[in-house]
Amino acid sequence: MRKIYVVGIGPGEYRKMTLEAAEILKDCDVIVGYTVYVDLVKEHFPGKEFLTTPMRREEERCRMAFEEAEKGKTAAMICSGDAGVYGMAGLMMEIGKSYPDIQVEVVPGVTAAIGGAAILGAPLIHDFAVISLSDLLTPWETIERRLRGAAMADFVLCIYNPSSKKRKDHLKKACEIVLEYKSKDTVCGIVSNIGRDGESCQILTLEALKEKETDMFTTVFIGNSQTREIDGKMVTPRGYVYERR
Amino acid sequence: MRKIYVVGIGPGEYRKMTLEAAEILKDCDVIVGYTVYVDLVKEHFPGKEFLTTPMRREEERCRMAFEEAEKGKTAAMICSGDAGVYGMAGLMMEIGKSYPDIQVEVVPGVTAAIGGAAILGAPLIHDFAVISLSDLLTPWETIERRLRGAAMADFVLCIYNPSSKKRKDHLKKACEIVLEYKSKDTVCGIVSNIGRDGESCQILTLEALKEKETDMFTTVFIGNSQTREIDGKMVTPRGYVYERR
Repeated sequence: MRKIYVVGIGPGEYRKMTLEAAEILKDCDVIVGYTVYVDLVKEHFPGKEFLTTPMRREEERCRMAFEEAEKGKTAAMICSGDAGVYGMAGLMMEIGKSYPDIQVEVVPGVTAAIGGAAILGAPLIHDFAVISLSDLLTPWETIERRLRGAAMADFVLCIYNPSSKKRKDHLKKACEIVLEYKSKDTVCGIVSNIGRDGESCQILTLEALKEKETDMFTTVFIGNSQTREIDGKMVTPRGYVYERR
Repeated sequence: MRKIYVVGIGPGEYRKMTLEAAEILKDCDVIVGYTVYVDLVKEHFPGKEFLTTPMRREEERCRMAFEEAEKGKTAAMICSGDAGVYGMAGLMMEIGKSYPDIQVEVVPGVTAAIGGAAILGAPLIHDFAVISLSDLLTPWETIERRLRGAAMADFVLCIYNPSSKKRKDHLKKACEIVLEYKSKDTVCGIVSNIGRDGESCQILTLEALKEKETDMFTTVFIGNSQTREIDGKMVTPRGYVYERR
């Protein structure tokens, strides 16, 4: 059976891609993706055929990849981070129903939660919830319910899409909800441009996070009740039975 | 400043390691880790010095790595999956307080949630919560509270350590709690031995999952209300505003 690959390229930096992803992109005939992601990998795969569509044209992008596969080419659809976390893996499988002789294979990658956590220290050592604040495809009520459920149960929260040009106040609204359950001194962290030019991070309290302006290239972490700052790093202990050393 | 690396090696298969992780392990002087993980990577780094400790000897293992760094060697502590998700990154930073002239750098990797999701299809496309059922360091009440919070808010759940030799009924108990909030027909998936010999996966209902025997090498996925089975794959749609194509 013919295969089509959906490949997570990691946060951006070439070295943060898996060996498998690099191998598949090297061996395939055509790489399909959102323009920004194609630009991130282009220099590492010289002479390769690239096909791009702009943002929001996801369905078109997926069909483009399947059409290439139909022609007999090995096609790889790339996503930043991991293709399975707010990525194209699901849509590829839905659209794949129309191409029954092509098998979709997902190639995992380092998503922003994992890549960002490594930069901040070790915030996700214990149970955590990943929530996107984008209300393009999800009603805000559902997002709010998720924030409440996660905050109430003392999860560490990792927030994707904390704001965009159109939605400036989503992070503030989210923090206000979380503040109903978590202390204002909760240790939080933000990371911007993970594995790309201008990478930066900051540790701050939940109260300070509420007033923070972020953009689409920022990932936000809100600690649990045990999360601490240790030597400038955000660290969540492994267990709730606090071990003393 | 001298550096010590905490490296996520991914699920097990060498190709699922990042280029960065492979590079660091190739260039370092000594690789420290739990015996099982060292055995997974050993053949790929011939001639390298390896130091191991058995399970549960985590603190000793960390100190061992720092002692090597103190001697002037470049040391890498390896963890399966990602070092920042139920891994050693946090403990390394806590113990690092006693070694102020050594900087801990976390090298991200593909954790079981990401690696397992890729095998099952695309279960984590939307908001998800990661919960460990191990009550070694966490009281069961906290685990139960997390399960309730996540199930109530219709997160996709990804469960680590669903059971062990001593804790045979944890997954059953967890499913019973989740069944208070989610339908018995909720699409679930289990993956065993991700990226290792004997890798296998299965899609089943929440009701069937409750009766399933699992082990420490299994990762469990419980869908949200929108998760579907498409051609034998577990797929969560990207949004809650169901788009029709």
